[in-house]
Amino acid sequence: MTTLLQNGSVVNVFTDTVVKADVLLDGEHIVGVGDYSHANADCVVDLTGKILCPGFIDGHIHIESTMLTPAELARLCLAHGTTSIVADPHEIANACGADGIAYMLAASEGLPLHVYLNLPSCVPATPFDESGAVMTAEDLRPFYSHPRVLGLAEMMNYPGVLMRDKAVMAKLEDALKRGRPIDGHAPMLSGQALDAYVAAGVESDHECATAEEAREKIEKGQWIMIRQGTAARNLEALLPLFEPPYDRRCLLVTDDRHPADLMREGHIDHIVRAAKQAGKSVLTAIRMASLQAAQCFGLRHVGAVAPGYRADIVVFENLDTLAVSAVYSAGRPVVVEGKTLPFASPAVDDALVEKVLHSFLIPPFVAEDFSIKAEGKKCRVIRVLPGQLLTEEWQTEIDPDKNGGIDTDRDILKLAVVERYHGTGHKGLGYIHGLGLKKGAIASSVSHDSHNLIVIGTNDADMAVAANYVRENGGNAVALDGNVIAAMPLPVAGLMSLKDGATVAEENESVREAVDGLGTVQGVEPFMNMAFVSLSVIPSLKMTTLGLVDVNKQERVPLFLS
Amino acid sequence: MTTLLQNGSVVNVFTDTVVKADVLLDGEHIVGVGDYSHANADCVVDLTGKILCPGFIDGHIHIESTMLTPAELARLCLAHGTTSIVADPHEIANACGADGIAYMLAASEGLPLHVYLNLPSCVPATPFDESGAVMTAEDLRPFYSHPRVLGLAEMMNYPGVLMRDKAVMAKLEDALKRGRPIDGHAPMLSGQALDAYVAAGVESDHECATAEEAREKIEKGQWIMIRQGTAARNLEALLPLFEPPYDRRCLLVTDDRHPADLMREGHIDHIVRAAKQAGKSVLTAIRMASLQAAQCFGLRHVGAVAPGYRADIVVFENLDTLAVSAVYSAGRPVVVEGKTLPFASPAVDDALVEKVLHSFLIPPFVAEDFSIKAEGKKCRVIRVLPGQLLTEEWQTEIDPDKNGGIDTDRDILKLAVVERYHGTGHKGLGYIHGLGLKKGAIASSVSHDSHNLIVIGTNDADMAVAANYVRENGGNAVALDGNVIAAMPLPVAGLMSLKDGATVAEENESVREAVDGLGTVQGVEPFMNMAFVSLSVIPSLKMTTLGLVDVNKQERVPLFLS
Repeated sequence: MTTLLQNGSVVNVFTDTVVKADVLLDGEHIVGVGDYSHANADCVVDLTGKILCPGFIDGHIHIESTMLTPAELARLCLAHGTTSIVADPHEIANACGADGIAYMLAASEGLPLHVYLNLPSCVPATPFDESGAVMTAEDLRPFYSHPRVLGLAEMMNYPGVLMRDKAVMAKLEDALKRGRPIDGHAPMLSGQALDAYVAAGVESDHECATAEEAREKIEKGQWIMIRQGTAARNLEALLPLFEPPYDRRCLLVTDDRHPADLMREGHIDHIVRAAKQAGKSVLTAIRMASLQAAQCFGLRHVGAVAPGYRADIVVFENLDTLAVSAVYSAGRPVVVEGKTLPFASPAVDDALVEKVLHSFLIPPFVAEDFSIKAEGKKCRVIRVLPGQLLTEEWQTEIDPDKNGGIDTDRDILKLAVVERYHGTGHKGLGYIHGLGLKKGAIASSVSHDSHNLIVIGTNDADMAVAANYVRENGGNAVALDGNVIAAMPLPVAGLMSLKDGATVAEENESVREAVDGLGTVQGVEPFMNMAFVSLSVIPSLKMTTLGLVDVNKQERVPLFLS
Repeated sequence: MTTLLQNGSVVNVFTDTVVKADVLLDGEHIVGVGDYSHANADCVVDLTGKILCPGFIDGHIHIESTMLTPAELARLCLAHGTTSIVADPHEIANACGADGIAYMLAASEGLPLHVYLNLPSCVPATPFDESGAVMTAEDLRPFYSHPRVLGLAEMMNYPGVLMRDKAVMAKLEDALKRGRPIDGHAPMLSGQALDAYVAAGVESDHECATAEEAREKIEKGQWIMIRQGTAARNLEALLPLFEPPYDRRCLLVTDDRHPADLMREGHIDHIVRAAKQAGKSVLTAIRMASLQAAQCFGLRHVGAVAPGYRADIVVFENLDTLAVSAVYSAGRPVVVEGKTLPFASPAVDDALVEKVLHSFLIPPFVAEDFSIKAEGKKCRVIRVLPGQLLTEEWQTEIDPDKNGGIDTDRDILKLAVVERYHGTGHKGLGYIHGLGLKKGAIASSVSHDSHNLIVIGTNDADMAVAANYVRENGGNAVALDGNVIAAMPLPVAGLMSLKDGATVAEENESVREAVDGLGTVQGVEPFMNMAFVSLSVIPSLKMTTLGLVDVNKQERVPLFLS
């Protein structure tokens, strides 16, 4: 099957030029770029006036953060010209271990979006976490033989690298000895500590918040992933990297991206567009979004419109709006007139589906599950800060006899983190300040990075109602006066929906509106902030299934002070 | 074992800058670049005023063309700052097949020069050749598991690629499905034929004679190897490639390089120096000679002075002369004060050595072996052209009764190509014009690409004397009046010496002087021209073990016309 894409202009990422040329495809590959007007192709498409670019590559994304299955994510990404992603199944691996990785591979098999995986390096993310699984180097090793597994995903445990922790080094060595890429994650690391981290084989970073930080990392040989996602948005700060010599060593990534943003703003195309609007060369941005991402990961014959390259092509109306007209993936049209063509979602083995659909091993909740046995009056309260994932420790007195210590006047709510995978009954209980809820309760199974069940409420009864919804359906729930008033079910590992992007975006919006109705604080998104309240790598005070953790001291601390 | 290289300036190939910095090595790797003045290293070397560069990489070289074993070549290369080479054992594979490749791997094992191999793709080079071995895809396949085998070497058979010859495609597919690099060799190929060749997966080219040709190949996605060897010298023509955007897609190679040139001019350092002298950025040239060569072949952690990179470092006195002061290879000093430190040559298994040392299966020669049975008077004579490897067909009359048709007055000499591997007794006999010998004879076992025994002489007796020397010792011999008056023995497969570079260069010079004494023609080097007289891919008339070949018609033709 040969296809001739005729009369368009082609972006050449080897020379940063745009050249009028036909493009001839044969099967999955490009076989000619030039004047092929006399070629006798099976199918001829006229692209007069249009621009052909290499399909975009997202060099680092967590599919789970989109809350979509790989197939549903593919439907959104393709429409924005993304034809390949390098995903880190860190979240589902924390929930379901090797089964989670196997599910991600099976659920992305044969998609028109090429889904590569890097293996999650930090499961669990911290020693304080009770995750669904612990993954050692040995557990990861079998996955290296899968053709779509590239290397090792973001090594967040940089203290472990610097201290040459044996379990950490074993994972690095497995990737190194196979000649595989190793992604980094080391915000603000600099100087000799950065040297030591990079020297361990870590080749990239996506956590740079300033151009200065990125320049140092490039000087030390790292690839810089310029990240523009839903939460973390580093593009503006990193615009200086679009100039030589730094532009040669950058790629574009989203890391975490919500479906509403994918639909409204776009994906990698959004970053290219934003760079262009900021006055940077669109050809440089396109090169970062294609060839250089492929180079970073050692993907041969991917990332260019050139002979021998996989025929992943995005056709833009023009280079000003970058409006997507059509997309080809491995030679097949997958987007036509801006619309993703239908395709079947991969069939995943029933036994594997069952495993990821049943990640909640906890009995139903009753209000009493959330009662706190008072051991004093003065206690540690987690203080949430607007616009930040950082928290502070607030030492204050509560009245345990009045609504179990909850005091909405002073914005002191109850917080619970419940171990959900192993039936241990472990449960961390305490208080949180700064979310602003005046009534009801919210619960979620998206709770980084172990994704235990987390509940925050103004009364124990609504906490039980919200928690029970999540226990049964996964996802996010809002309860008020004994009823669930809004919810987004995420049955796959408690992290992903089985619905399409538009529906998930709508559900997410309805949950957001419902929680707004319970009372809010400027700059605080209760579900977003709640999702990081249990991540004991971000300072200062966090709640785990085993109680409070002082992150700065890296030790558990009691709720009550006296 | 840690080593601190202190107070020098470091060439950063990621940013094209030179920065004052210490470099800390730990074992085989670089672990720090910056201010390490307080580091407590096992060994401290002061490099005040000196320049540290990544060790150079020759992206394409035939070790056999240096006539040196890998160890002896290493001794020369290292002194010029080359720490890695990508070698194509095409010549020894034509002589000895898989044994030849195995020998090259064994003879380069553990050297301080990192010797990578690409597997020879065209053994034999043409269907007219009777080579020592025929290597199919199946024969090459086992070598892919060797850690120093990268991919497939120069695919010269571009007609075979364009016609999708099954045997050729099988070799390409083996490399492609393993994600390995494939080197090209397609002089002057352009347009849609080039598209088809590149589309088959061929990623590089080292045959560009003009910048225009190179630009087209870069636009089509190929890496361009800027070649400056002993015979082929393309640097001057390709100087425009040292400018953006083309500079990103180039590396530096020598292809064929004689030991005298290696000693006198240098190796990759010579190309860098020459580019600089021609007004190009020395930092661009260094980047091509290091990081980009590694990128072309997908070698991770090689080609830069940066944390995590293999500690292959060349220390220059300054960036003007590029005089080599010291060289480190995988963290060990291998050149100190400009002198290569002694190292043991690898021990090669005796049985393997025996195989490559005994590649001549022919009985001793007598003068009568070279007598030609006259089948007429008018015959085809190969006409050698000054300064070219091209030959022409000259149809002229000879007198078979007078010195067997040899006529030194008209510069008509006798030529024989004798099959030397299989005892077939095949022997091509004929006449050659343009070498200018007035007396004596010359013989060689370096005779591209099959390296049968080739002899040219003014009389049958001296031809037998020269041929017998080569039969016994391999290499090149000059005979006069019944005696060998100069010779360079090349016992390893008839291609390589067991002596050191200086001795081989001297022997080569003595042979050249001796042949000059027999009579010469301006612009003709008898041994060089003779070495290509049997290569039936270069037009027009060539001699093989089975007689004359008309290269343009690609068919055998008789010696006598009537």
